[in-house]
Amino acid sequence: MSHACDRQDASQGDTDQKEMTPGKKIPVFVDGVVLNGPQTDVKAGEKFVEEACRLIMEEVVLKATDINEKVCEWQPPEQLRQLLDLEMRDTGESQDKLLKLCQDVIRYSVKTNHPRFFNQLYAGLDYHSLAARIITEALNPSIYTYEVSPVFLLVEEAVLKKMIECVGWKEGDGIFNPGGSVSNMCAMNLARYRHCPDIKDKGLSGLPRLILFTSAECHYSMKKAASFLGIGTQNVYFVETDGRGKMIPEELEKQIWQGKQEGAVPFLVCATSGTTVLGAFDPLDEIAEVCERHGLWLHVDASWGGSALVSRKHRRLLHGIHRADSVAWNPHKMLMAGIQCSALLVKDKSDLLKKCYSAKATYLFQQDKFYDVSYDTGDKSIQCSRRPDAFKFWMTWKAVGTSGLEERVNRAFALSRYLVDEIKKREGFKLLIEPEYTNVCFWYIPPSLREMAEGPEFWRKLSLVAPAIKEKMMKKGSLMLGYQPHRGKVNFFRQVVISPQVSREDMDFLLDEIDSLGRDM
Amino acid sequence: MSHACDRQDASQGDTDQKEMTPGKKIPVFVDGVVLNGPQTDVKAGEKFVEEACRLIMEEVVLKATDINEKVCEWQPPEQLRQLLDLEMRDTGESQDKLLKLCQDVIRYSVKTNHPRFFNQLYAGLDYHSLAARIITEALNPSIYTYEVSPVFLLVEEAVLKKMIECVGWKEGDGIFNPGGSVSNMCAMNLARYRHCPDIKDKGLSGLPRLILFTSAECHYSMKKAASFLGIGTQNVYFVETDGRGKMIPEELEKQIWQGKQEGAVPFLVCATSGTTVLGAFDPLDEIAEVCERHGLWLHVDASWGGSALVSRKHRRLLHGIHRADSVAWNPHKMLMAGIQCSALLVKDKSDLLKKCYSAKATYLFQQDKFYDVSYDTGDKSIQCSRRPDAFKFWMTWKAVGTSGLEERVNRAFALSRYLVDEIKKREGFKLLIEPEYTNVCFWYIPPSLREMAEGPEFWRKLSLVAPAIKEKMMKKGSLMLGYQPHRGKVNFFRQVVISPQVSREDMDFLLDEIDSLGRDM
Repeated sequence: MSHACDRQDASQGDTDQKEMTPGKKIPVFVDGVVLNGPQTDVKAGEKFVEEACRLIMEEVVLKATDINEKVCEWQPPEQLRQLLDLEMRDTGESQDKLLKLCQDVIRYSVKTNHPRFFNQLYAGLDYHSLAARIITEALNPSIYTYEVSPVFLLVEEAVLKKMIECVGWKEGDGIFNPGGSVSNMCAMNLARYRHCPDIKDKGLSGLPRLILFTSAECHYSMKKAASFLGIGTQNVYFVETDGRGKMIPEELEKQIWQGKQEGAVPFLVCATSGTTVLGAFDPLDEIAEVCERHGLWLHVDASWGGSALVSRKHRRLLHGIHRADSVAWNPHKMLMAGIQCSALLVKDKSDLLKKCYSAKATYLFQQDKFYDVSYDTGDKSIQCSRRPDAFKFWMTWKAVGTSGLEERVNRAFALSRYLVDEIKKREGFKLLIEPEYTNVCFWYIPPSLREMAEGPEFWRKLSLVAPAIKEKMMKKGSLMLGYQPHRGKVNFFRQVVISPQVSREDMDFLLDEIDSLGRDM
Repeated sequence: MSHACDRQDASQGDTDQKEMTPGKKIPVFVDGVVLNGPQTDVKAGEKFVEEACRLIMEEVVLKATDINEKVCEWQPPEQLRQLLDLEMRDTGESQDKLLKLCQDVIRYSVKTNHPRFFNQLYAGLDYHSLAARIITEALNPSIYTYEVSPVFLLVEEAVLKKMIECVGWKEGDGIFNPGGSVSNMCAMNLARYRHCPDIKDKGLSGLPRLILFTSAECHYSMKKAASFLGIGTQNVYFVETDGRGKMIPEELEKQIWQGKQEGAVPFLVCATSGTTVLGAFDPLDEIAEVCERHGLWLHVDASWGGSALVSRKHRRLLHGIHRADSVAWNPHKMLMAGIQCSALLVKDKSDLLKKCYSAKATYLFQQDKFYDVSYDTGDKSIQCSRRPDAFKFWMTWKAVGTSGLEERVNRAFALSRYLVDEIKKREGFKLLIEPEYTNVCFWYIPPSLREMAEGPEFWRKLSLVAPAIKEKMMKKGSLMLGYQPHRGKVNFFRQVVISPQVSREDMDFLLDEIDSLGRDM
């Protein structure tokens, strides 16, 4: 047990201030601490950063596109804990030991940059964004006020402006948040504030039940948000979707009427552009009609699908998004900005965001500063210290231009289409649904099940296939993609195409590999 | 206006799949996109990262401790916008142009690493943490499940365990959050869940008014949290503090009784260990007594002061913290882990955190995985994708050991003491309050005011001094420290000592510089 964890408080030490003269410069002691010069060994520190950077270049950056590298080096928790020296001790470790630790961290971490990492809604390596992220770490800014983050606040303003244009608004407001779940929460709170500003001060106690509507295929952050905001998960009304996973506007309207009949107060509809599992896009135009008829705030969770807005070819999936009151859009997903980069965009220009969130801390947001304090935008956030997440996306956008972003999105769509066609051609693969986006959902049916009738026994057996193949692929380290059961459908694979480093050959490999791992089941 | 922002949806292009044979390899076209090989220019990308790293080493890391460099290169917003080429265009910029942009971003950003940056509750450069942060950016992990973040989840577990030991609990639970404000919010929600688990599903509607107590000197995130959680800012009862900024336990008890008499339902007391402005520590032992008597959850916001726990000499400031139910502690402040690194620690071991936060998304937290899914701890968070903030702190802790962390804390205390003694010695400087921590609050009184009686006119004139000196120091770029009015006291400086690169000479410089900038006022 470390000394720092002793509960006994140490007796107060020497608190006299002494001066001694062992040389030219007089060292100043206070409480036994020498106060002259810096305490850190700066040269050793600089050298460590340099060596770590070399390691990172060699082991991560230069290997990122190498398909001969493993996607992961699987170790179960108990073994991995033994392989890594996790414990923090009273005294520090040598620089060599630390570099070895860095090496191990890299070795046993999943390579989310790898062209065959398809496990999540993000993947790949954007070199320009990475450079911006390293600059961010070196400068270590926090973007609450212009005085401490002049560049990053202007960059955020510029990026928000451009994203707002993409949504189709002439003007608007916004803020970057630590992830889409938080952006959705913030939108929910903003809609509530617009509905009844008094709630900020008085709370929900004594008010009638507020209710909101979202599709049955929405992201789970909707429930988290309703619970966190004191609204309650039961007050999230889930609207039925059609066969492709899209909210049915008539069902939405029915539910709104039903909620009103129950005496509840509807205040918000959350549509989804790009659902997590199926990649479905809710029909925004029809949903906007319903919202207008009932005076409800329309939030669009486009965390995943928002990136289609940069493609002239595919932005029609979000047709009607300009009618939304707020939009969540995560460039860290398909546009590869790096975890995390999530914008909440707001149509209102009457400073609703600021009115809703501000707490006016006088130690941070002084009003007698010598510059225009409207640039101190930090008070629009639920956070105090906040990372400059817009900056990494800005750097990529500068580097490849809107047309470069568009090319990436178009390529991801095209690759998904290729994969779908291959799945249809190949024996043993069965498409779950014709995708709208780049989520390709399918079952692999091993030879032993191919002749079976599609009854309960077939589905029970099929449900075991994806987890078993997943285990094999992870232990082999050859690729990673996710599986899940979903609304009555047993476990199926969800292949997500994102990275521009991914090629047709990787799609072929994916299917070959699944077949080779599952053939004997 | 960029093409991507045209609202007209482009007509559907060529969707035929063609094959052509211009050489050995057959290129595959889908929707006009070539799908063979990666799309990115990998070599150019790698080169850019390498060059950016060189720039970062030269312009940020190697200059971090150089006091001859400016802390900031002040430009007002309008000018800075003209100096930087912020606009994102249809086509990308050249690599040279991008490197020049990186240079400008660095040039006009505030050097929070600089030994004379004292503006916030964080400062300085920790080389080991920086190396870990660069590894993080290169690997780009998200730590919801063990399968995608095996190393980082084990590291988080190890760091939480150690921090829990420091608090003085035998066991506990916890999660890292994007900042102290979010950690405080999460604690508030957790306390509410413990008080009444039904609120998660049913919400606050129809319930009696829930109220919480915190000191008048607490962080502004308490109000933000109460508003966000639907509790309402009016239901935060602010307890009076003594002359040193510490909550008065008798006043707390009075307010609890008063709230109960009003028919409200107390559920939480938030004590502060290290207040934002004065650095005051609430008397935790006495407050814990009150909480136990009334059955209230005790949360300690030790975001700023928690780091004193690693010092055997100074941890007595948090005496009684082991009696808390939850603690927020930000190693990104005094322990220099980098923005952000904030832990919410919870004493409960009955899985309260998980029960309170989980939404059990089946696409992410499948229960039929081949490993022990208790390691998939992401569902304890309000976030979905989440950064491995524990890792950077772990690397520092490994590098310097608990004793190294302790030395840093002790040195910051000693330097503050030195500064206080100097302020007392020097004419024209007036200490606001004897500090408990490393916030040193003081007025500078220019010669023209030194003979004036301390009446309303004196205070009015004095209130103009700090903002004017702040303007001068920022335009000169010689140092940065904050000022604020506070609870009836006119604008005063708040000097915060953190970085081990800071020396006694920097303290002397600070006072000399303020005197030199303010002497003629």
